[in-house]
Amino acid sequence: MSFCERKISMVQKILIIGAVALGPKAACRIKRLSPETKVTMVDQGSLISYGGCGIPYFVSGDVSDASQLQSTSFHMVRDEKFFREAKDIEVITRTKAKSINRARQVVLVEDLQTGEEKELPYDRLILATGSRPRRISVPGSDLKGVFTVSNLDEAMAIKTKIAAGEVGKAVIIGGGAIGLEMAEALSDLWGIETTVVEIADQVLPGVIGKAIARMAQNHIVEKGVSLQLSSRVVSMEGDGKVSAVVTEKGPIETDMVIIAAGVIPNSDLAGDAGLRLTERGAIWVNSRMQTSDPSIYAGGDCVEIPNLITGRPGFYPLGSMANRQGRVIGTNAVGGRANFEGAVGSFVIKIFDLSVASAGLTLGAAEKAGFDPVSAFVVQFDRAHFYPEKDLLYLELVADRKTRQVLGIQGLADKGDSMLARINAVASLLRHKPEVAEIGNIEIPYSPPFSSAMDIINALGNTAENIIEGRNKVIEPEDFASWWENRGKGDAFFLDCRGWGNAEPFVNKYPDHWISIPQDELRARLGEVPKDRPIVLICNTGVRSYEAQLILNQAGITNTFNLQGGMAAIKKSGIRL
Amino acid sequence: MSFCERKISMVQKILIIGAVALGPKAACRIKRLSPETKVTMVDQGSLISYGGCGIPYFVSGDVSDASQLQSTSFHMVRDEKFFREAKDIEVITRTKAKSINRARQVVLVEDLQTGEEKELPYDRLILATGSRPRRISVPGSDLKGVFTVSNLDEAMAIKTKIAAGEVGKAVIIGGGAIGLEMAEALSDLWGIETTVVEIADQVLPGVIGKAIARMAQNHIVEKGVSLQLSSRVVSMEGDGKVSAVVTEKGPIETDMVIIAAGVIPNSDLAGDAGLRLTERGAIWVNSRMQTSDPSIYAGGDCVEIPNLITGRPGFYPLGSMANRQGRVIGTNAVGGRANFEGAVGSFVIKIFDLSVASAGLTLGAAEKAGFDPVSAFVVQFDRAHFYPEKDLLYLELVADRKTRQVLGIQGLADKGDSMLARINAVASLLRHKPEVAEIGNIEIPYSPPFSSAMDIINALGNTAENIIEGRNKVIEPEDFASWWENRGKGDAFFLDCRGWGNAEPFVNKYPDHWISIPQDELRARLGEVPKDRPIVLICNTGVRSYEAQLILNQAGITNTFNLQGGMAAIKKSGIRL
Repeated sequence: MSFCERKISMVQKILIIGAVALGPKAACRIKRLSPETKVTMVDQGSLISYGGCGIPYFVSGDVSDASQLQSTSFHMVRDEKFFREAKDIEVITRTKAKSINRARQVVLVEDLQTGEEKELPYDRLILATGSRPRRISVPGSDLKGVFTVSNLDEAMAIKTKIAAGEVGKAVIIGGGAIGLEMAEALSDLWGIETTVVEIADQVLPGVIGKAIARMAQNHIVEKGVSLQLSSRVVSMEGDGKVSAVVTEKGPIETDMVIIAAGVIPNSDLAGDAGLRLTERGAIWVNSRMQTSDPSIYAGGDCVEIPNLITGRPGFYPLGSMANRQGRVIGTNAVGGRANFEGAVGSFVIKIFDLSVASAGLTLGAAEKAGFDPVSAFVVQFDRAHFYPEKDLLYLELVADRKTRQVLGIQGLADKGDSMLARINAVASLLRHKPEVAEIGNIEIPYSPPFSSAMDIINALGNTAENIIEGRNKVIEPEDFASWWENRGKGDAFFLDCRGWGNAEPFVNKYPDHWISIPQDELRARLGEVPKDRPIVLICNTGVRSYEAQLILNQAGITNTFNLQGGMAAIKKSGIRL
Repeated sequence: MSFCERKISMVQKILIIGAVALGPKAACRIKRLSPETKVTMVDQGSLISYGGCGIPYFVSGDVSDASQLQSTSFHMVRDEKFFREAKDIEVITRTKAKSINRARQVVLVEDLQTGEEKELPYDRLILATGSRPRRISVPGSDLKGVFTVSNLDEAMAIKTKIAAGEVGKAVIIGGGAIGLEMAEALSDLWGIETTVVEIADQVLPGVIGKAIARMAQNHIVEKGVSLQLSSRVVSMEGDGKVSAVVTEKGPIETDMVIIAAGVIPNSDLAGDAGLRLTERGAIWVNSRMQTSDPSIYAGGDCVEIPNLITGRPGFYPLGSMANRQGRVIGTNAVGGRANFEGAVGSFVIKIFDLSVASAGLTLGAAEKAGFDPVSAFVVQFDRAHFYPEKDLLYLELVADRKTRQVLGIQGLADKGDSMLARINAVASLLRHKPEVAEIGNIEIPYSPPFSSAMDIINALGNTAENIIEGRNKVIEPEDFASWWENRGKGDAFFLDCRGWGNAEPFVNKYPDHWISIPQDELRARLGEVPKDRPIVLICNTGVRSYEAQLILNQAGITNTFNLQGGMAAIKKSGIRL
């Protein structure tokens, strides 16, 4: 403290470029630590300090008024007046920072209304310049009716157009978080016929794996949204105003296009001033959020920080990152000592009635990063199975085969909170590089209305361990789907380990492929098990089929595959039998 | 693996004493790893492998049938037949283990129906002898109508008596988890006039601190349950059948008494065999869950394991512990290698419409363990404040002042799952001894329907840091209540930092004590602040009052106290102004 206080007095003027998320957070932290410091925030927009992540909820109407996104939890609008009176912070809006003179410690700014230029001096400079939407450079992308979701002004333009009844059909380019949230906003709440075009072969690429993506896609399509995966936009057409998006698969008629293809860090101001940039073109910072010039800090969407699992630079354009980094910068800017070591990457989205979350690496990302990953998939109730109200959770754990290090977790559920209660327990842990056994013993509070005595999160760790140790030989719903499609070739039998009541309809419908031997009868009925081809073992969720696999192993029948997640996963994935 | 497999063949016979929670888990794990091993479970009861934690829900009727507590999630009753056919495990019920001959590796058992005795041999023995309810040795405690909640048989007796209409009034002795769950079961679902008598000065002693306990107590009383705290039972009265519980405060008429005063580990069998016991009288085990005889394992309610925060032995009689330890024992008993290092202690309970959870140490427990703890209390919405559906969460963080190590977390909320999403994130982390700054940067997934950009869990870590650094000088609702009661003495002013609209009714009602200066006007109105006595700063949740404290500090007014949790905490605590 005394060290901080001594240094604090030396910092007289702090200038912040950008006043949406990180800027205001850093500014307020500075004033709390050092009330005498003069803090000035400059922003090129007219709206400041708003919750950009709330834009889809503003467009949908869930948030009725844009000012709610700009308000505090106690209903004060965070405008220039608020910052001046409640926080003693000066805010200059509609003003663009044009260049930094590091030698003289001044920033040249231009008033966007008058064109007037002036220099603002600083002792410490904070760059909170954010990001901009990635544009798609195809013919017609500059037509009227083509939007991005980059800021509150643009969101208001979209909502105005919709509310005016001008949009019957819409195309969203990008099946990431913003794209899917906008798809829900348009289709569910405004009844707009909506198509999402995604260049990857799944929604939320990089954030969730294929198994959970398939379940999410099934839900989105059930909700009436059209989904074009593995599809590239070739052009946009229209007479002044967009009327169609043309993909490799053909044209899609539309009244509006929303481009949600990710964001690019705004680093020109920093780059032009000779600050170090990363390969991606973001601003480089150390763990104190200092740029290569120790007087200049940067954070939020304009920087990269280390991924704590891979050790490589990571890009996390999220309001939550900006807020936490803003506090660290605020502390350091007045001589305190705070660190932001990096991130593991965490994610959650509500899509219609479904919640999808993740933390850390997917199987694909782990492979790319050089790990030898396995994936465990468990379906189980969120409460004790005897508790009356309960829902199924679908969780996936990714771990490295050799070191057993847990690399990531993903989840899907109807009830998002109880799913997050598990995801968060692992999200907070990932930076400590836990092994799968630690997840098997993770100590979340237990009581029947909230969890199970052997909770799904523990079962997930144990399942990963069994897979790594070669005891549980598994396939995913995706694999099942392709084996099932090709069942006519006779490559495999499908052995149903559930009670006869569950198995009967399938045995009757597919007598050549589907066999029923309940797990508790398997020891006595080993003779009925075909031994001439691979066997896919199936039960409700994958627990009894694992038991069955062990019994078959003991009997020398080892060419078996346990369907992870069982029929519950099959159903949720929209695979029809 | 090859090491495991080699050793597995050497273990021929495994005997397990106790077949409720840990026993069946260990047995199943053993059979999965080593199908050839012969596993026998012995239990003195007739009902085995049931979810004991579900007993209150069975009594309430939420779980309609006792067999549901004994079933798998796929509706198979886990009885002797199930274990034999589905698991190849032998179960002997109604049979008591009387002594262990460690030299000859046999256990003498008695058939409780026939009185017949015999010896069962073992290569590895597993003690899953559980615990028994702590009895209260007062006159009359052996009267008819006095129950414990020790097992499913007794729960059925309670339910039968209630269903027969014999219980209009009930007294529950013990305000711990089971006592409160039973209070809800009796009063909410059966309409029984219920009194809970607790010897400590709060409910859930040792598990939650006073601030959150007060909120829970307020809710329980609002729901119509009578609560006698700091009250000792002196005797029970009745003519053959209990008709009153007499406490230090007088008699309470009743038709039924349920004693829920904790449990005692069943360690006689182990102690008599010369196995090492702990000071508490539990069975001592190492991190592989081996007793002082390496051929004998023990786990669940009959053992103590290290508390990972204090390093001292801890007693955790929970079904979740039993299950996880059972798996570890199963692995080790057949030559595998698994560890159970200890526990931090985690807890959750649903009480009527309220959920209360904790992990790690309370302030009081931390003091007892020799720490110099501080407590941060934060009230904030569980979602982005602009998201339409949201609820307030009440979280408390306990941390050591010197080392900044996080020692525990507690929470209270109407919606338990979103509260647990935060508690669990810290529960899993506690064993890594995080500092408060790690909680400030904890990386739970962010999206407006699930969390805030600066989430309550991060705010909690930051608040603890501010308190430790002496920046945020706080009082608890409990302190506020006593200052407020004594306001006539003129010891303090109460400064309301909210808008005038919120403050007005209090200023009008208490013009001599309650002052209104909204935080955003404070800089301009410093002259109005009284300087002759301490000032309690109040806002909705404690955020603006903290800002106000910093502004006053800057102006040299330092004799101020920020009410943590603000009016939201006051209201939830049932403190009336």
